[in-house]
Amino acid sequence: MASEDSTPAPPTPVPAPAPLEVQAAATKDAKETKLPSRPAAVVLKTPKGTQDWFGADMIIREHLFQTITNVFKRHGGSPLETPVFELKEILAGKYGEDSRLIYDLQDQGGELCSLRYDLTVPFARWLAMNSKDRIKRYQIAKVYRRDQPAIARGRFREFYQCDFDIAGVYDAMIPDAEILCIVVEVMEALKLDITIKLNHRKILDGLFTVAGVPADKIRPISAAVDKLDKMAWADVKKEMIEEKGLSEEIADKVGEYVQHSGTIQETVDYIKADANLSANDDIKAGLEDMTLLNAYLGAYGVVDKVSFDLSLARGLDYYTGLIYEVINKPAVAEAAAAAGGKGGKSSRKGKKEDPASQVGSIAAGGRYDNLVGMYGKRTIPCVGISFGVERIFTILKARAEKDQRTSEVDVYVMAFGNKESDGLLLERMAVANQLWKADIRAEFSAKVKPRGLAQYKSAGDIPIGVILGEDELAAGQVRLKVLTADSKDQGQLIPRENLVEEVRKLLAQL
Amino acid sequence: MASEDSTPAPPTPVPAPAPLEVQAAATKDAKETKLPSRPAAVVLKTPKGTQDWFGADMIIREHLFQTITNVFKRHGGSPLETPVFELKEILAGKYGEDSRLIYDLQDQGGELCSLRYDLTVPFARWLAMNSKDRIKRYQIAKVYRRDQPAIARGRFREFYQCDFDIAGVYDAMIPDAEILCIVVEVMEALKLDITIKLNHRKILDGLFTVAGVPADKIRPISAAVDKLDKMAWADVKKEMIEEKGLSEEIADKVGEYVQHSGTIQETVDYIKADANLSANDDIKAGLEDMTLLNAYLGAYGVVDKVSFDLSLARGLDYYTGLIYEVINKPAVAEAAAAAGGKGGKSSRKGKKEDPASQVGSIAAGGRYDNLVGMYGKRTIPCVGISFGVERIFTILKARAEKDQRTSEVDVYVMAFGNKESDGLLLERMAVANQLWKADIRAEFSAKVKPRGLAQYKSAGDIPIGVILGEDELAAGQVRLKVLTADSKDQGQLIPRENLVEEVRKLLAQL
Repeated sequence: MASEDSTPAPPTPVPAPAPLEVQAAATKDAKETKLPSRPAAVVLKTPKGTQDWFGADMIIREHLFQTITNVFKRHGGSPLETPVFELKEILAGKYGEDSRLIYDLQDQGGELCSLRYDLTVPFARWLAMNSKDRIKRYQIAKVYRRDQPAIARGRFREFYQCDFDIAGVYDAMIPDAEILCIVVEVMEALKLDITIKLNHRKILDGLFTVAGVPADKIRPISAAVDKLDKMAWADVKKEMIEEKGLSEEIADKVGEYVQHSGTIQETVDYIKADANLSANDDIKAGLEDMTLLNAYLGAYGVVDKVSFDLSLARGLDYYTGLIYEVINKPAVAEAAAAAGGKGGKSSRKGKKEDPASQVGSIAAGGRYDNLVGMYGKRTIPCVGISFGVERIFTILKARAEKDQRTSEVDVYVMAFGNKESDGLLLERMAVANQLWKADIRAEFSAKVKPRGLAQYKSAGDIPIGVILGEDELAAGQVRLKVLTADSKDQGQLIPRENLVEEVRKLLAQL
Repeated sequence: MASEDSTPAPPTPVPAPAPLEVQAAATKDAKETKLPSRPAAVVLKTPKGTQDWFGADMIIREHLFQTITNVFKRHGGSPLETPVFELKEILAGKYGEDSRLIYDLQDQGGELCSLRYDLTVPFARWLAMNSKDRIKRYQIAKVYRRDQPAIARGRFREFYQCDFDIAGVYDAMIPDAEILCIVVEVMEALKLDITIKLNHRKILDGLFTVAGVPADKIRPISAAVDKLDKMAWADVKKEMIEEKGLSEEIADKVGEYVQHSGTIQETVDYIKADANLSANDDIKAGLEDMTLLNAYLGAYGVVDKVSFDLSLARGLDYYTGLIYEVINKPAVAEAAAAAGGKGGKSSRKGKKEDPASQVGSIAAGGRYDNLVGMYGKRTIPCVGISFGVERIFTILKARAEKDQRTSEVDVYVMAFGNKESDGLLLERMAVANQLWKADIRAEFSAKVKPRGLAQYKSAGDIPIGVILGEDELAAGQVRLKVLTADSKDQGQLIPRENLVEEVRKLLAQL
């Protein structure tokens, strides 16, 4: 198990099973050293980097997924479900050196398969297989990476990705603007205070060219610039000069450009005011896009949520246009308050990779017009967003911790009375059934004769009690009572036929 | 790929990669025989026995899962989510000879893992790891079996299971009755006409004993009896005598008993009327359970949905009490109408296995009080139900086929007018945004200047159109129109500020 604690090594050939005589020898050794000869007890745990989810956590997670799904559907998103494993060759060559993190299935005869590493490659494979030219698809599903887990920081080997992508040929920036509108709607529904940092690959590349960065150094310099949200400019500059071999003059020019940010209009004006920049063809094309985007975000009323930040680069090579990262403002403020700047940023390889590992970044994406072409004959331009749901879950959980319920049941049906001998079980069943038929969530003690106080305890954090007594039932009545700890409510007697209506009223008030 | 077409063989050791010189030789051969020297194009498909889900199918599947989830939550069920793979040793020894169908992950260093084969073992592992004594948990998730797929018949290698189980010590038959109540609620919500066949393992075993079946033949004879829903009695009898070595006299006695079915009360009375049967201790204990169950199902008003059928045996060894199968009545009628009785039933190994492969059976389960004890020190009695959701999906799909929508969007925002030159894009965006903010699902053409008819086509089966014109907008109005094919509706002009309200009214009428 020691090998588990180091960074995963590249896949090594699976060793053949030990020959029988070696196995026998091992068994003999075990006996001689007085190890127990019975098979060791099975260790009860989930595999490394995975966990079970239950109770209060699941309530928060379901709320999160439901909120996001509602917004996706509101915008015409259709769910796509793909198998958890793909043919190995579908994933081959898509993730660079991170391919070593892919989980392979054992060769048990038949096809060689691997667990999906993200949701983008399966989507691209599906697009290439099907005849859809235009599609808004979303997928919320688990992906698998043999990475070093850090569960406390929300880094798992099995974790959810939550992607919305618009594929197809449309007029410029219309889908891009809708993606940003979706981001704002999701974050407002989750009550998260965010800023969306924007940039445009063509503008960024043009800017490097104008500054004098050689073509073959644009991607490495871009990667260095991308660290500006974690490192001081002086350190980034040092990396550019010492590690990437840029001259100090060019590095300073790059620094001058990329440290600019502001509203879309401000940054567009800043670039236009520079004759060198505004003469570059890539930059011209990018500015056209950004001007359209500004108008469209205005129509959606979300223009104040974005910042056009020339230092945003995103790690991935395949972005071709608009790129964005969603920043959780309180998290950034908190991080800034803590002692600043140390700690490297983890790898950003893999599309829309790991926003959760970046301070404050809880969603990210961009336009990638050439990726789908890798899988088939047709090229389908795409723009998308991936929500870092494990990170968002951590934020929601921290916020909810105090009064988070562990049950979603609304009513507990109890029996009380003078005669402890009669638990009124059939009557409790019938009343619970009355509530179920009205789609009200209800439980009762699964004892024939439960004790009174035990029923209160079993009710847990269920907010409403319906209390049955023999005399009240004979009079066609039941007692309704708020069960919260601080309630002095003695309850009210109501006609049994009004129970559903009265419970609904009470629930609406809670 | 030929090996894929035979029944999966037991797992074989993974062959080590071919030595480099062998690989090189193979490449050389390929060149010499004029095979293309470029790597072969990747085959775009999902792995055998799996498929993507999208569009109309997903709408039906989400409706199915949501309906079941609602009922589960109404009864206090809590969702449990477990990893898609478990430590290999957790699954070891749990599935008998079907273990060969388990998918293993490749050994890439670290722990050895396998994909889950069902949801019961992960649940039992979770119960053994945690301190919960009583729990109603549900899980709707995919499981994996390297079985021979038959996708047309709904048999996949990756498929959903949908389990609700109540674990813990409660008074007799109270959880069992609630499970059956849940079944009826789910089936009513899905508008499926069902019967629940019931039996009790103690009664069945007692009955075999009284008939004279030797103790070591009870399970094999039970398995033969279980085929009575597919085979004629004469054939089952033949199997008992010729294959299982029962005497004709004992076989006839078994046949006399197990061919009885009726209401719970009728079958209880039938057994009580037989002095031999009612003297057996197992049968006495079973009759007590069935009498309680009858009373509880009466309180839930579902007693008319069940049939106490002494031929129901269920394949699994570990059931200890009540067992049940849910029969889709129209499917049974259809099968009876077709030429009768041929075709063997597929294996029933594995807990709550494969109800979809049995004619008409769409859910199944029972009480298993000793299973959890296998994984830990504590024994936790359980009772549960597994819905055959792939089979139920097939039924729902066949029913829905005619008018099933492929989109869930409610409103399409369009622009028309005299001036083809102006597509009113910003206005369409603003109106769509107005609808989104009100949680109404809306789309519009992602073109700056879409043509009028093209917009109608793009609307597809979206039921409501909002039509913008320059003059109307200037007057603060928009046109609302039903878009269904047979609609003669010319639409109505409404004030734009009433749009949300009017759309909601129209949606409520559709």
